[in-house]
Amino acid sequence: MTGPAAIPPSEPPRRRGRPPRAPQDSASRAALIRAGLEHLTERGYAAAALDAILAQAGASKSVFYHHFASKEVFGLALVDEYGAFFARFLDAALRDPAQPSALLRLWSFARSAEAGMARHGFRRGCLIGNLGQEMNALPEPFRARLIATLRDWEARTAACLQDARMAGEIGPHHDPAALAARFWIGWEGAVLRAKLERRAAPLRIFTDGFIDGIAVPGHPLAAMR
Amino acid sequence: MTGPAAIPPSEPPRRRGRPPRAPQDSASRAALIRAGLEHLTERGYAAAALDAILAQAGASKSVFYHHFASKEVFGLALVDEYGAFFARFLDAALRDPAQPSALLRLWSFARSAEAGMARHGFRRGCLIGNLGQEMNALPEPFRARLIATLRDWEARTAACLQDARMAGEIGPHHDPAALAARFWIGWEGAVLRAKLERRAAPLRIFTDGFIDGIAVPGHPLAAMR
Repeated sequence: MTGPAAIPPSEPPRRRGRPPRAPQDSASRAALIRAGLEHLTERGYAAAALDAILAQAGASKSVFYHHFASKEVFGLALVDEYGAFFARFLDAALRDPAQPSALLRLWSFARSAEAGMARHGFRRGCLIGNLGQEMNALPEPFRARLIATLRDWEARTAACLQDARMAGEIGPHHDPAALAARFWIGWEGAVLRAKLERRAAPLRIFTDGFIDGIAVPGHPLAAMR
Repeated sequence: MTGPAAIPPSEPPRRRGRPPRAPQDSASRAALIRAGLEHLTERGYAAAALDAILAQAGASKSVFYHHFASKEVFGLALVDEYGAFFARFLDAALRDPAQPSALLRLWSFARSAEAGMARHGFRRGCLIGNLGQEMNALPEPFRARLIATLRDWEARTAACLQDARMAGEIGPHHDPAALAARFWIGWEGAVLRAKLERRAAPLRIFTDGFIDGIAVPGHPLAAMR
């Protein structure tokens, strides 16, 4: 299980309708994506130097421009790769068939994500949070793509919270979609703070407070109320 | 009343123990601070161009280096100015003697901050959140200064939540300091998202959910539970 700051496996998903690339071509693109994700989850877009990314990927400028027309196109591809990667990471916890409690599945996502950040010394944050914070200095096409990525993660989280409501883990007056929106607003703040302080506490403070605030009294995850 | 993205008044506070500066000297420093805050609350540190800040402040490079030894020293001065400015802004709401309900004072802070962001079209965020997100690309001295600023704001918020607990607006099992930490973790996430989406909704979703989650049943700010 990998964390939110972890990097997708080296083989990129094949796009429907496009001819398969030559293996070497795929490998150089994947190496650029991996290096780009490492740099941008750690430093953000403005501070990420293309030269350093190329050096890490062992790729020349001409190979880069063969795959990506510009830094902007590259950045948007990173958003797509990270969004899809993280959606799978989320689903692994939120749809875990071995865990019947939906609230525990949400809790478990947060702890897995924490483990992912810890593995990188809390230096890497969420690509979407990093770029969201920088949005005013980014090309405008990033805005819709970042918002859509967060909406996708919210929808997956809302489905889990809907399960929690159906099972009576949270009160029937709660709106799963509204709660999921609240979760992602706060979670990005928690990742930001965990990176700043280089420790797990902000992730736990946020997640445990969020779950405690919605769990029905007597739920194993609810504090004494 | 000014918002979180608003800029401090042009006269900087006099430092104890330092001789007063010549008025012109003070004015040029204040203009640089104002321009720096505008650029960095909007674009962050890495994307902020010193040339653009100088042009806006009408200051030459030599005037800049007369006041600040480097971009780093300038950035740290901006953190100090913004931290102190925002502490006064927070206190204006959280210690408002005209509002007896502590939870309403917290709610009122959030709405004032929202008005401040709205005035700038939600383009400007929180300087501390922006720089916190960029921390891995910033000189290391920023880390302690950013954390200390957040701790200061948390302490002011904890005092307000302590009032709420004393008055029975929140349950006696709540720890005001822990709640204040949760508030600031989530609030920075909400400001990030409001800036990304250029609208107030994330601030309201977070704040109303936070207050609803801690207010005692029947409190005017508590939703039906």
